[in-house]
Amino acid sequence: MTQQLLARLAQPSSRRIVLLVLDGVGDLRTADQPATALETAATPNLDELARRSATGRLIPVAPGITPGSGPGHLALFGYDPTEPAGDIGRGVLEAMGLGIEVTAGQVAARCNFATANSSGALIDRRAGRIPTADCRRLCELLNVALRQADAPATVTPGEAHRFVLVLDGQDLSPDVADTDPQALGGPPLEARPTSAAGEATAALANRVISLIEEVIRDEPRANRILTRGYSIRPSLPALPELHQARFGAFAGYPFYRGTAAACGMEIVPCGKSLVEIIESVAESWDQFDFFFLHVKQTDQAGEDGNLAAKVAVLEDVDRALPRLIDLGPEVLAVTADHSTPAPLAAHSWHPVPLLIHSPVCFIDEVTQFHESAVTAGHLGTMRSTELMALLLANADRLAKFGA
Amino acid sequence: MTQQLLARLAQPSSRRIVLLVLDGVGDLRTADQPATALETAATPNLDELARRSATGRLIPVAPGITPGSGPGHLALFGYDPTEPAGDIGRGVLEAMGLGIEVTAGQVAARCNFATANSSGALIDRRAGRIPTADCRRLCELLNVALRQADAPATVTPGEAHRFVLVLDGQDLSPDVADTDPQALGGPPLEARPTSAAGEATAALANRVISLIEEVIRDEPRANRILTRGYSIRPSLPALPELHQARFGAFAGYPFYRGTAAACGMEIVPCGKSLVEIIESVAESWDQFDFFFLHVKQTDQAGEDGNLAAKVAVLEDVDRALPRLIDLGPEVLAVTADHSTPAPLAAHSWHPVPLLIHSPVCFIDEVTQFHESAVTAGHLGTMRSTELMALLLANADRLAKFGA
Repeated sequence: MTQQLLARLAQPSSRRIVLLVLDGVGDLRTADQPATALETAATPNLDELARRSATGRLIPVAPGITPGSGPGHLALFGYDPTEPAGDIGRGVLEAMGLGIEVTAGQVAARCNFATANSSGALIDRRAGRIPTADCRRLCELLNVALRQADAPATVTPGEAHRFVLVLDGQDLSPDVADTDPQALGGPPLEARPTSAAGEATAALANRVISLIEEVIRDEPRANRILTRGYSIRPSLPALPELHQARFGAFAGYPFYRGTAAACGMEIVPCGKSLVEIIESVAESWDQFDFFFLHVKQTDQAGEDGNLAAKVAVLEDVDRALPRLIDLGPEVLAVTADHSTPAPLAAHSWHPVPLLIHSPVCFIDEVTQFHESAVTAGHLGTMRSTELMALLLANADRLAKFGA
Repeated sequence: MTQQLLARLAQPSSRRIVLLVLDGVGDLRTADQPATALETAATPNLDELARRSATGRLIPVAPGITPGSGPGHLALFGYDPTEPAGDIGRGVLEAMGLGIEVTAGQVAARCNFATANSSGALIDRRAGRIPTADCRRLCELLNVALRQADAPATVTPGEAHRFVLVLDGQDLSPDVADTDPQALGGPPLEARPTSAAGEATAALANRVISLIEEVIRDEPRANRILTRGYSIRPSLPALPELHQARFGAFAGYPFYRGTAAACGMEIVPCGKSLVEIIESVAESWDQFDFFFLHVKQTDQAGEDGNLAAKVAVLEDVDRALPRLIDLGPEVLAVTADHSTPAPLAAHSWHPVPLLIHSPVCFIDEVTQFHESAVTAGHLGTMRSTELMALLLANADRLAKFGA
């Protein structure tokens, strides 16, 4: 509803919007960790930016909800991931991140090469993280075999042990359970339908998995496969049409590229560090109105429960920031898709800090960018699903509502 | 919707949740009352708890809405009382509080014995608050008379002048207006249907009221009855099934036991003071995952417009608190269902303070538990309907949402 209202009010503007997502940056103060990563890190450039910005906090998706990366980002992009239409399967996101368009009727699954011992028991769910070159070589062999067997399926290599399987056919359904048992010591599971609608798809998946495992049975490490996240193409309204603007995504990791692509953003190749990402942004500066920049390393450090690493990443981010500011984005927002507090070593529901710098932001009294300082900020605390409207408003991209 | 999302994400946890509701604790600062009850009371234990907790505020139900006790508590339990399904009649709640299960097809009303003079005019709507023993004796007589007359109705005594009437039959409806005129000097009203569906029920109610008043006509004080809140059994989804946890309610007053029972909580007998309530909690410590503790006296003092009494109650609460903390609840929340500011001597819509202590709460800089201090807290200001999600999240009872 809100998204449709924003679309109705869309108007052109020359102001560029840069949304810098520090994945999982939100952290905790607990009895054992008296300061958060943002409170601990020396971030003079972020703080200087906060001094000239409106600040506040976002509740990821909804109170108490710990979002995965997909819902976390969809909410930042203005979708309500708690609505059925916002529920995108991980297989499709992964496929999109690899640049594969999943078309109507297809079902995508994300897959791992894995290692089983001679009695069929899994001993490594990631096949020792085989080199990406090996993954590519194997996927080529598999596609040849699938074609020869006339199986309506293709695989696309990702990084290391990861690849994507796309099934093609009539009446396919995403109602198929993962074959990844998420544990070692037993064999991979069969593909089982989770509803009557999934029966044909599960049967096709089992046939394809057999064909694949026939090809790789003598590989030293990648001798089995695990499949997860069977899913179909989402039907999200595309951001460029909704908001009459050109959206570019700058993310070093496939999953986030996939999420952005699912929203209709154009995917721009870039490196994994913020320095590299900003260089790609600079090169594309005239091609987009909205730039989504994704920094993954904050989340990785949080997931590792490593506060020191998270602090170091933030100090790297801070050093990279002036180059981004020098590009002169009229609207520059910094926030996160969710918290990944080091004490939890996992995603969490806790609110994340937000700053919005623009010619029309309310410059509040907050002079530091961290969880507790921004509690007093002018933006207050809102849901992450509400961010897009604020970004568009700051960019003068929303006409007055009503006379 | 959100409640269904929470149900979908339910996962087991060994962390206990204690929700201490200080009924109506929220108060006002006005020109004539420069400090609230919480600001005035010496509450060292609450303040020490606040020091180790995340704090914030709850807006009861929705902005500007002054909830009754039913909606106020339903919202704290995660229901949206503005939805039709969350609208439970007071008669049913009162019945449930007395331990009567209202079954499908039955209609319950809460009743008072009242006093009318010889010309039939009400002179006391509460029959001089007759002793509970008298109420019980009269209800026994009434049930005998109703049985003899073959009237499909029973009464159950409550405290003092209060009792509950349950009507039984085919096609009964709650669409019957109160017979309590809410004023003295005139007679009780007839039971009138508020829709065509209520006609048969109103007729039955009038017949039953006549039978009852025939029995008690010569009583010195309890010679008439007043009926209110005709209602049917609610169909709320039960908390234990929704959240896969064992919910225990510790409330000294029938109405709150009824509300908790309507949500599927198990009702545990307990006294009326927090000291007694905590002893019952301690005895049941291994039987529940979620403990709802209800303190009524804060609201009573507020309703009386008596700030000093409210302060005294809070100091009693504070003295009882260490025993509760010593039980070691992993998640301990303190808040209210609504404000009952002494200057209003009534419920109000004003936000109420909230604290949540848990191993994963953000320990913010707030060091006192009162209306103004918690405004700066990390939890911010949210609706009371959102509390349950936060409690479950803090107890690690919600799985990650999406990949």
